[in-house]
Amino acid sequence: MSETLDSAVRSYVDTHREAFLGDLAEWLRIPSVSAQPAHAQDVERSADWLAAQLKETGFPTVEVWPTEGLPAVFAEWPSEDPGAPTVLVYGHHDVQPAAREDGWATEPFAPEIIDGKLYARGAADDKGQVFFHTLAVRAHLAATGRNAPAVHLKMLVEGEEESGSPHFAALVEEHAARLGADVVIVSDTGMWSAETPTVCTGMRGLAECEITLYGPAEDLHSGSFGGAVPNPATALARLVAALHDEDGRVTIPGFYEGVEELTEQEHALFAELPFDEASWLDTAKSQATAGEHGRTTLERLWARPTAEVNGIGGGYQGEGGKTIIPSSAMVKLSFRLVADQDPEHIERIVGDWVARRTPAGIRQETVFSAGTRPCLAPLDHPALGSLTRAMGRAFGRRILLTREGGSGPAACLQEVLGVPVLFLGISVPSDAWHAPNEKVELDLLLKGAEAGAYLWSDLAQNWPGAT
Amino acid sequence: MSETLDSAVRSYVDTHREAFLGDLAEWLRIPSVSAQPAHAQDVERSADWLAAQLKETGFPTVEVWPTEGLPAVFAEWPSEDPGAPTVLVYGHHDVQPAAREDGWATEPFAPEIIDGKLYARGAADDKGQVFFHTLAVRAHLAATGRNAPAVHLKMLVEGEEESGSPHFAALVEEHAARLGADVVIVSDTGMWSAETPTVCTGMRGLAECEITLYGPAEDLHSGSFGGAVPNPATALARLVAALHDEDGRVTIPGFYEGVEELTEQEHALFAELPFDEASWLDTAKSQATAGEHGRTTLERLWARPTAEVNGIGGGYQGEGGKTIIPSSAMVKLSFRLVADQDPEHIERIVGDWVARRTPAGIRQETVFSAGTRPCLAPLDHPALGSLTRAMGRAFGRRILLTREGGSGPAACLQEVLGVPVLFLGISVPSDAWHAPNEKVELDLLLKGAEAGAYLWSDLAQNWPGAT
Repeated sequence: MSETLDSAVRSYVDTHREAFLGDLAEWLRIPSVSAQPAHAQDVERSADWLAAQLKETGFPTVEVWPTEGLPAVFAEWPSEDPGAPTVLVYGHHDVQPAAREDGWATEPFAPEIIDGKLYARGAADDKGQVFFHTLAVRAHLAATGRNAPAVHLKMLVEGEEESGSPHFAALVEEHAARLGADVVIVSDTGMWSAETPTVCTGMRGLAECEITLYGPAEDLHSGSFGGAVPNPATALARLVAALHDEDGRVTIPGFYEGVEELTEQEHALFAELPFDEASWLDTAKSQATAGEHGRTTLERLWARPTAEVNGIGGGYQGEGGKTIIPSSAMVKLSFRLVADQDPEHIERIVGDWVARRTPAGIRQETVFSAGTRPCLAPLDHPALGSLTRAMGRAFGRRILLTREGGSGPAACLQEVLGVPVLFLGISVPSDAWHAPNEKVELDLLLKGAEAGAYLWSDLAQNWPGAT
Repeated sequence: MSETLDSAVRSYVDTHREAFLGDLAEWLRIPSVSAQPAHAQDVERSADWLAAQLKETGFPTVEVWPTEGLPAVFAEWPSEDPGAPTVLVYGHHDVQPAAREDGWATEPFAPEIIDGKLYARGAADDKGQVFFHTLAVRAHLAATGRNAPAVHLKMLVEGEEESGSPHFAALVEEHAARLGADVVIVSDTGMWSAETPTVCTGMRGLAECEITLYGPAEDLHSGSFGGAVPNPATALARLVAALHDEDGRVTIPGFYEGVEELTEQEHALFAELPFDEASWLDTAKSQATAGEHGRTTLERLWARPTAEVNGIGGGYQGEGGKTIIPSSAMVKLSFRLVADQDPEHIERIVGDWVARRTPAGIRQETVFSAGTRPCLAPLDHPALGSLTRAMGRAFGRRILLTREGGSGPAACLQEVLGVPVLFLGISVPSDAWHAPNEKVELDLLLKGAEAGAYLWSDLAQNWPGAT
C-alpha cells in the first residue's frame, strides 16, 4: 500500500471534482424513471448519455444493450496484464419516480448542492454511485501511470432496477459469456454511517405471492348465513396466523432448508457495529422490536429469512359497518430469503402448505411472482480483503462488515456467473432513497471514487496467483 | 274457532282485495329510501300517506312522530273491552335503495302484478306486510260485527329501519308509556316457504366493532425492516384466528354467558322443517357448511351466536406486489347474539380480549357501533298459541316454528316494554329483499291479512283471565 499512490489518487480526485460533479448533475437532470411509461425515452436518453461518458472515460468497448423493456449499458476495458482478474461492476441508471409536491425542498430533477450534499433523485440511488466509477478509473490510471486498469474491468448498468428488473435475468443469461468475471462489485448499496464505513457481504433474496381464498359465490348476509358457512376472511386470517410459531419461526415445512447460520466471526463483527436499539426503532418508526426468538435485531434483518404480510384485504372496508360474509379475501406475502435458500423451492413449499391448509368449502389460488435469490460472499474471499482494504484507505478507518436486508437483481449474477458478489457503496441511511429529498454526501461520494481507484490496484496485486 | 268467522273474514278479504292492492300500489310508488338523503321528503310523504290510510281504516288516534332523522307513524285503536290485552304491531315504511339498472325487470317504484306476484321495492319489506294489517283489522271488524278491535291495537311504523334505525331506541324510550303493550307483533319477517308456513319466535342480536392495529408510524420497506418489527397485519390475523377454537366455538371468555340452549321441544320442531342441505347450500352459494361442531345448520343459524369477519384490510392491495410492512390493519367484526346475551357485555369482553391480546409494539383501537339485543319468545306464551292458531286458520296447515338469524330493531321493544316479541310474517325466501325484483306473493299477502283478523279475536279469547 503506497502512500504515494494514495496521495496521487486523492489529488486527482480533488482536482477533477468540479468537472465530475458537473457531469453527474447533467445526468441527474434526465428523469430516467423506469416505472413511468411516459419517461421511457428519458431512460433511453440516460443510457446513451452514460455510454458516451464511459467512452470518454476511456472504455474501448461501450454498448447499449436493448432488452424487451428499457436498455442497459455495458462497457469493457481489458487490462494490459492478461493474467489480471476480471471485475464486473453492477449499477443502474434508472431512478424512482419523484415530484416536487411529494415533499421535495428542491426540484428532484434539478440537482442542487447545499451544505456539501447533492440533492436530486438518483443522487445516491444509483447514478452517483455508478458515476464515481468513472472518476475512480481515471484516478487509478493517473496515479499508477497505466494506460488501462490493473484489472479487466467490465460495467453493466441496467435501466429497470426501480421497476423490478423484469428483463435483467434474461439479459444476463443472453450475455453470460461477455459478462464472465471473477468477482462482481455492486455499487448500489450503502454503509452503516459516515463514521462507521462498512462493506456489505450479502443480500437477502425474495419470494412473493398473492393468496386468494374464495368462499361463497357472492357476499352473504351475516345474519341469514353467519355461523353456518366458511368465511374466507377468517380462513385467511388462520392461514396467516399459522405462518409463524410462538418463537417467531416460520412454520412452513422445509422453509429453513439451506439457511446458513452466522459464523462466530460474523457474530463478532456484527457485534462491533454501534447498533443502538432506541435509535434504530426511531428509524423503524416502531415501538418495539419483534421477530425470531433468540436472534439479535441485526441477525433478524440480515441473516434470517422472513414471512411478512405486505397487504391483506377482503369484504367491506368502507365507512361504518356492513354485515356480510365476504365472498373472498386475499393476502400478499413476501418472504425474504438468505443464503442458501432457493426461491423456487420456497414457491413449491408455500404453495403446498396453502393447499393443504385450505379448509373445506374454500377454494384457494396462490400466484407467485418471479423470485430473487439471496447472495452471500465467503468472508475469506480474497476480493473481500481487497475491498475492505480499499475502503479502509479511502476512509482512514477500520472497515466493519454488514449485510443488506433487502434484495436486488445483482444476486442473479452470483448464480449465473458462479462468482461472489461484493458491495462497494458509500450511501448512508439519511440519503432518503425512494423518498423526497434524496441526496448524496459529496465527501463520501468522492471517497467512493478513491476506494474504486485503490480497489483495482489491490485486487490485481492480491489476487491468488498474482506476482 | 268459528267456521262462520273464518268464511266471513275470507269473504271480506276477497271482496276488498282490489281496493287494498290499489292502495298498496299507491304507497309503493313513493320511493321512501331512508338511506338516501335525496329521498328524505319521500320518506316524510310515505309517513303522511300511511297516517291518512290508518285514519281512514278507523284508528281514532294516528300521529306522525318526528325523530332526529325520519318520521315514524303511531296509531292506536282501543278495544271496547277495557280488560282486553294490548298488542303493538311493529313495521317500517322506509325501503332499501333500488334502481332499474341494478337488474330489475320492472321499474322498482312502479308496482306491477305478474303471475300473482306484486313486484316493487318494499312489496315484501315492509310496506306489503305493514299494509295487510289495515285489511286485517277491517276484516276482523266486519266479520265480528265489532266497532273496535277485540284487542287494544297499537301500531308503530318506523321510517329508518333500512338505514339501521339510528333513532328508534330513543323514540321508543321517549314514548314508552304510550307504547305499553302485553305483546309485540313484528310484521317484518317471513316464513319457511309457501308450503311450510311458520311462525318465528326470536331473532338474533348484533354487536359490531372495528378493530384497528397500528404498527410502524409509516409503511416500512420489508427488506430493510422485515423480520425485526411487529407487523400489524400479521398481529391482526392472529387476533382473528384466535376468535374461534378448533370446534368452531368463540374463545372470548364470557362470550357464551346467557346463551340459552334449545329445548327438546324446539329441537324437535326444527327437525320437522323440510331442511335440505344441498338446496340450502345453493341459496348460500357455498360449497360446504361450517361452524360450531355438534350443531345442526339451523341451530347454528338461529340459536347459536357467531363471530364473523365482515371486512379486513391493511397494506398494499393493488395490482402486483409492494414489499412493505403496513403501518396498520383493520378488521370489521360482527357478533350475532342469541337470547339472553347482552350486546353491552359483548362489547366489554371483546374490548378486553383485544386489549389483552395486542402484542408489544402494536397499538389497538376498538370501536363498537350501537348493538341490537336478541329476542326470544317463551314457547308456552299464550300469544304464541294465538299466533300459531291464527296462521293455521289462514293457511289451513300445521304451523311450525322457526327463528330468524338476522337482527332487527324491534328487539328493543322486548327490553323497553318488558314483553315478548312475536313475528307475523308471510314473506318467502324468493321475495328478494334488498335485491332487484323484490316481490310479494298476493295469495300469501292476503293470507297475512286473514291471519291478522283471526289473531285479534283469538288473543282476546285466550288471553289469561279472558272470559
